[in-house]
Amino acid sequence: MTDEMAGAGLSVQTVATNEIEDAADRALIARYRSVRAQTLALAAPLGAEDQVVQSMADVSPTKWHLAHTTWFFETFILRDHAPGYRVFDAQFNYLFNSYYEAVGPRHARADRGLLTRPALDEVHAYRAHVDARMEALLADEAALRRMDGLAELVELGLNHEQQHQELLLMDIKHVLSCNPLRPAYAERAGKNADRAPPLRWLSFAGGTHEVGHAGRGFCFDNETPRHRCWLEDFRLASRPVTNAEYRAFIADGGYEEPRWWLADGWQTVRNERWRAPLYWYEQDGEWMEFTLHGGRALDPAAPVVHVSYYEADAYASWAGKRLPTEAEWETAATSGTGAAGPVPFRLHPPPAAGDADLEQMTGGVWEWTASPYTAYPGYRPAPGAVGEYNGKFMVNQMVLRGGCCVTPVGHVRSSYRNFFYPHQRWAFAGIRLAEDAA
Amino acid sequence: MTDEMAGAGLSVQTVATNEIEDAADRALIARYRSVRAQTLALAAPLGAEDQVVQSMADVSPTKWHLAHTTWFFETFILRDHAPGYRVFDAQFNYLFNSYYEAVGPRHARADRGLLTRPALDEVHAYRAHVDARMEALLADEAALRRMDGLAELVELGLNHEQQHQELLLMDIKHVLSCNPLRPAYAERAGKNADRAPPLRWLSFAGGTHEVGHAGRGFCFDNETPRHRCWLEDFRLASRPVTNAEYRAFIADGGYEEPRWWLADGWQTVRNERWRAPLYWYEQDGEWMEFTLHGGRALDPAAPVVHVSYYEADAYASWAGKRLPTEAEWETAATSGTGAAGPVPFRLHPPPAAGDADLEQMTGGVWEWTASPYTAYPGYRPAPGAVGEYNGKFMVNQMVLRGGCCVTPVGHVRSSYRNFFYPHQRWAFAGIRLAEDAA
Amino acid sequence: MTDEMAGAGLSVQTVATNEIEDAADRALIARYRSVRAQTLALAAPLGAEDQVVQSMADVSPTKWHLAHTTWFFETFILRDHAPGYRVFDAQFNYLFNSYYEAVGPRHARADRGLLTRPALDEVHAYRAHVDARMEALLADEAALRRMDGLAELVELGLNHEQQHQELLLMDIKHVLSCNPLRPAYAERAGKNADRAPPLRWLSFAGGTHEVGHAGRGFCFDNETPRHRCWLEDFRLASRPVTNAEYRAFIADGGYEEPRWWLADGWQTVRNERWRAPLYWYEQDGEWMEFTLHGGRALDPAAPVVHVSYYEADAYASWAGKRLPTEAEWETAATSGTGAAGPVPFRLHPPPAAGDADLEQMTGGVWEWTASPYTAYPGYRPAPGAVGEYNGKFMVNQMVLRGGCCVTPVGHVRSSYRNFFYPHQRWAFAGIRLAEDAA
Amino acid sequence: MTDEMAGAGLSVQTVATNEIEDAADRALIARYRSVRAQTLALAAPLGAEDQVVQSMADVSPTKWHLAHTTWFFETFILRDHAPGYRVFDAQFNYLFNSYYEAVGPRHARADRGLLTRPALDEVHAYRAHVDARMEALLADEAALRRMDGLAELVELGLNHEQQHQELLLMDIKHVLSCNPLRPAYAERAGKNADRAPPLRWLSFAGGTHEVGHAGRGFCFDNETPRHRCWLEDFRLASRPVTNAEYRAFIADGGYEEPRWWLADGWQTVRNERWRAPLYWYEQDGEWMEFTLHGGRALDPAAPVVHVSYYEADAYASWAGKRLPTEAEWETAATSGTGAAGPVPFRLHPPPAAGDADLEQMTGGVWEWTASPYTAYPGYRPAPGAVGEYNGKFMVNQMVLRGGCCVTPVGHVRSSYRNFFYPHQRWAFAGIRLAEDAA
Repeated sequence: MTDEMAGAGLSVQTVATNEIEDAADRALIARYRSVRAQTLALAAPLGAEDQVVQSMADVSPTKWHLAHTTWFFETFILRDHAPGYRVFDAQFNYLFNSYYEAVGPRHARADRGLLTRPALDEVHAYRAHVDARMEALLADEAALRRMDGLAELVELGLNHEQQHQELLLMDIKHVLSCNPLRPAYAERAGKNADRAPPLRWLSFAGGTHEVGHAGRGFCFDNETPRHRCWLEDFRLASRPVTNAEYRAFIADGGYEEPRWWLADGWQTVRNERWRAPLYWYEQDGEWMEFTLHGGRALDPAAPVVHVSYYEADAYASWAGKRLPTEAEWETAATSGTGAAGPVPFRLHPPPAAGDADLEQMTGGVWEWTASPYTAYPGYRPAPGAVGEYNGKFMVNQMVLRGGCCVTPVGHVRSSYRNFFYPHQRWAFAGIRLAEDAA
Repeated sequence: MTDEMAGAGLSVQTVATNEIEDAADRALIARYRSVRAQTLALAAPLGAEDQVVQSMADVSPTKWHLAHTTWFFETFILRDHAPGYRVFDAQFNYLFNSYYEAVGPRHARADRGLLTRPALDEVHAYRAHVDARMEALLADEAALRRMDGLAELVELGLNHEQQHQELLLMDIKHVLSCNPLRPAYAERAGKNADRAPPLRWLSFAGGTHEVGHAGRGFCFDNETPRHRCWLEDFRLASRPVTNAEYRAFIADGGYEEPRWWLADGWQTVRNERWRAPLYWYEQDGEWMEFTLHGGRALDPAAPVVHVSYYEADAYASWAGKRLPTEAEWETAATSGTGAAGPVPFRLHPPPAAGDADLEQMTGGVWEWTASPYTAYPGYRPAPGAVGEYNGKFMVNQMVLRGGCCVTPVGHVRSSYRNFFYPHQRWAFAGIRLAEDAA
Repeated sequence: MTDEMAGAGLSVQTVATNEIEDAADRALIARYRSVRAQTLALAAPLGAEDQVVQSMADVSPTKWHLAHTTWFFETFILRDHAPGYRVFDAQFNYLFNSYYEAVGPRHARADRGLLTRPALDEVHAYRAHVDARMEALLADEAALRRMDGLAELVELGLNHEQQHQELLLMDIKHVLSCNPLRPAYAERAGKNADRAPPLRWLSFAGGTHEVGHAGRGFCFDNETPRHRCWLEDFRLASRPVTNAEYRAFIADGGYEEPRWWLADGWQTVRNERWRAPLYWYEQDGEWMEFTLHGGRALDPAAPVVHVSYYEADAYASWAGKRLPTEAEWETAATSGTGAAGPVPFRLHPPPAAGDADLEQMTGGVWEWTASPYTAYPGYRPAPGAVGEYNGKFMVNQMVLRGGCCVTPVGHVRSSYRNFFYPHQRWAFAGIRLAEDAA
Repeated sequence: MTDEMAGAGLSVQTVATNEIEDAADRALIARYRSVRAQTLALAAPLGAEDQVVQSMADVSPTKWHLAHTTWFFETFILRDHAPGYRVFDAQFNYLFNSYYEAVGPRHARADRGLLTRPALDEVHAYRAHVDARMEALLADEAALRRMDGLAELVELGLNHEQQHQELLLMDIKHVLSCNPLRPAYAERAGKNADRAPPLRWLSFAGGTHEVGHAGRGFCFDNETPRHRCWLEDFRLASRPVTNAEYRAFIADGGYEEPRWWLADGWQTVRNERWRAPLYWYEQDGEWMEFTLHGGRALDPAAPVVHVSYYEADAYASWAGKRLPTEAEWETAATSGTGAAGPVPFRLHPPPAAGDADLEQMTGGVWEWTASPYTAYPGYRPAPGAVGEYNGKFMVNQMVLRGGCCVTPVGHVRSSYRNFFYPHQRWAFAGIRLAEDAA
């Protein structure tokens, strides 16, 4: 999803009220503080100038992320639910509304980089102002229980903010990559792995399966309703495609050979003069990669990342395989063959560790699926302002699954549906192969 | 599909050899003559100047259609299978190849309208030259049986030519519509119907269904393999949406209200300043419609036509309904509730007649479905030159079903999958509503 | 000038009444017939399909030229001055108005190639209809003398039509050049010359000179008023730059070296990937040239043609020279050092013949000058509809002088000012060098 | 000029050695300190975020101006003339070269806003580093006299920096204007004048005049050589056109009526939807103006500013007048009828004071002339790196004269030639009318 989509959906079934009430409302306030602090921590390594620039229309400035996530709490919670709340600055509704048509006119997305004012300091003050009122509200247990759906709205706001944490990193990576100096967002400890574990194929049985969100935890509405679908037997690769494997595709002339490409993909390759993933570049005849740690030699064992759907599909064709559907992916992910826990947060996807049957289903790279992003059968847009446009992005985009190294830990689920246009490459997106069983 | 896609796929299971052999090969030669003559008949009302112009990149000139369909037979049949065949003009392979990368470089699609030469007379001579050799080949029963797959290739060529017959009419309609004189392609007998039959809702049971081509007749490879899928109970409208119904959407401010639209659709509405279907225009405060019969008052009872997917989806949202998936559409179409035969060929879709439960599933307008155009499970691209790119259009497009008034009679099937980009409007595309059963 | 500008100006001092009256009005009717017939003669080698296509926005279809020149007589003469005249088709005013805002709305210039109707036959009928009424009017001597300014309007219409004769050839050359078949407009007799005469430098004295139209013959208003200007001593090349000389500039890396180019020119070279004049192409390592006679080997002795102002200026810089100002050019042209008469009409500029001090000042190539196209001091736009926009093109364009091989014989004068944007190349434009005297 | 052009030319005759030597070299060091300090003073009201953003391709970030002017001294003086000088950062040559092809490849102009690094602090350090070495060099009188042309290079660098001071203000005005908050660059004392002095017409005699730089002071090479030209008698308005006068043009439908406009201007008006000068906007039915003091009510007595050449020309046509040529302007400016001294530096042009025959020839607004920017007769590009591209901007632009309120005091001369493309509006450009004498 682009930030246009972050927080697009309030789940219609995210009731989960017992859970929240039982663990006491203090859990929510603690979680609020934690998530909000994490956003500031992610911006901390950046100077004021880094935080204002927009390097392409898809990218938002860091400062805008800081303000927009705050605006979300102000607009959808404080303005309506906090008695006597005074809006911090009436003009911010125009500046920091992302795409909610019902909330009024807004600053054009492609012009977010023109906002030298409010200055970063003012945005920090805005955050502090809203946080103080939010924390007061969350500390008022009576109020929380009195207001129907408030806890769910807060939970939505926190998930929304987590999505923007990932976007912030994707976006600043693009901003920094446009600078000929190739500055690092953060220094890096450690070195490249020697090699990735060999690729294995895991088999899964077809039949009628259920997919979509189950249980009481939070989810976005596009994960619902849980529903049946029919699958044929299929096989899934044990790990994502590596840089070394992808480099072989390039070396074999992959970007010059139309037979591997979808027609729209081939058109894009030629128009954009693509010849490698987004952040690859050549230096003295060797492939290098720009990362959040700056430029460095390509790590052959790490997953290939920052490829478009077109490239993922072309690679799969060249390899004689295909991409999985999202139903296949979800079925495999819930089969119990994966690693025990998520890979920890990292600024670049590490090589697979060779420690499970199905590796890096989370925490490595978002994995392009063969499934266009559409409504599940029986999907209903949520009522009200927040959910006004729940389904409005359900065309022209492809689903990605699994989360990536810069996704906040705990944010994703096996039913989580991310989505991007097939030409987009600035997300941490990679490739996992599939094939028919027979 | 655009003409880029016409004939994109040779079915892998269109064996049907018995049928052809039994009915005698003479059936094929008769069919060849008939289809080829029909193409010329469709061009007959047009002057030479009409046949050379390209009004937008999606459109091809009539003359190009005449030549390209001929090139298809020359390239994929005569060149390889007719001993001693002399190519008519070696340069035509460059000029009239549509998109087959394996057949060599080709003239840019958007520049087809620059081909004032070869003149129309030369293209007619080209057709005659190829027809003479094709007919000689088809008359040679021994050859036909000796060459494996030849009859299937001829059948593919004829289906390809039929697709171009429809494209020829779509394209010339667009060319003529760009002329302020609004010239008619052909005069029209008859008058508008008074009213359309009332809209009824037909129920269909869910469960595991099979969709995709069955039987031995010809099909394109994207209709295969036949496969199972799971459907929930659903209901389908008895007839397409009418002009009168769509006019009410416009009158209700449909084109000014973002809430009904997908985000990409709303962007398109604003960028393109859409305010009605493609060929509608206002005259003295009344909606008029440009048709192949020239401009005329809008027929309120006739199906709305020349709408994009975005408009179809927005209309459905406004109406509180949705579009059917292609599996739902196919399930309904094969349920036995439809009209006995196809509506005859007409230059404009007529009002529904009120003579069946499920009306105008064929012969009226292509019906946008909610299904993105993707590969069926287990789909395999056909080997060889003709099938080289079978799946290369399977991204970014939406499936349409049913055929329309200008589709050659007998060309479509219930499993037939047409596809266009969601913004395209020059096909004879309309809307049939669906809804969940519950 | 583009056809937007053809006939932009009725001269305010083209009185010349004696001349017309003395020679009898029959001279005008004869000239009318001759000019109008010549236009049809130029279109005669072309098929109907050739005459409808527009290959870029600057180009107009042949058919449009045939109709627009006729519309000019109908609109500015017959409609107002021929009693009882019935307009041939009221819609033609919309279709064939080039740019006269006062005459009402008009068909967009870039869409002229969409006019498959009216068919060529109808346009021929339109010409015949207008010619019959024009000839009747011109035969009525009493009417001619009674109507003030009528003869001048006719003369303007004929000069306008002559401008379109040249445009017709420029335009069809571009149309045919877009066809991979490289068809010839006409076959050609003769062969290339062996060599051009050596380049000589002729000196001209500075001081106060007068430039602008003098005498009683017809001129366009941008040639007036005749006025004084100050010139320094200068020298002018005896003939235009040849293909061989220009080829040396290319061979020396002229198109890869920014130092020779104006900044806007260099930008254009890179954006458009220019590497030679418009119609040059390479074949087996040799430079070829597309001409109205089809493709052929480059004639090294012939003047280089179809270069932009940017290329002309860059060539001059590389050669250590400069382009002449238009005042210098006109001063030299009227100095009595040129060839006796104009070079005859040819479809391609021939090599200089070596028969005068100053060669090919007319009849070879239009010669780019260093002068931007601006108003002469004291210039006054003519009153009324025809002259409404006399000066509206006086910005962003450069003056060319002299006429070219496809300019109608007798159409140009030494004071004649043609003008194009500095990037345009489809006119028969070349280069004559100048330098300061000292 | 855009910043592409700032400092494009080292005058070939700006020897002026006596002056510099006489006043002692200390004058130069004092002037160096003063100019360099002024640039920092202009940036002082801005935050770091203000200084990094680029609001359109024509605009450069403040930080870039700070660095580029420093790079100029480093590259053209220190690197070659200061023994043992160590380049501050080798990568800065790539980042801060504006357009000097001979100095190597450079960062794309339109991407200057992507340079979040080097941070503002580093750029300040860069300035300090270069200033220290420059001041050491300038303090070394022996070195100064030993090195031929060094003082002239320093003088050029200072004039170059002054041009960038004006550009810095033009650019930041545009950046701030893009912000919906309409922030002020600086607060403003004072209020609008009541009224402008009445417009008077001053007569000037024609004949042979000399124009171009005279005397020994500094000038840019495009002001040379001084040369003769012929002028007819003319008249010039006593002051620039005011906002009130221009508002009357708008109220009279000036932006809806093609007859006043050059064809290219009219095209621009429609494409860009212009309906007033660049920074005008409507609020509650009144015209407001964005200024460096923020938004405020339009001052009817102040000169209209931020108009394009197209608008200046259209206004003149509507008023029945014309724009002056640059020779006319310079002749009038040197006639002794103007105000005694320059108007002081202001952030917005003030109303004329009514204190001279010819008012605000300097210090109000740059005045569009009718003269395209071309080479003077006998103009020679200067040799060497600095002068490599002296004339490369001499096409497609129009000359403006006089300087404006934000031009550094003392920077302009009566022979000074500024230039912009006819559609550009972000310079402080206005209108002074002229007419023929007769």
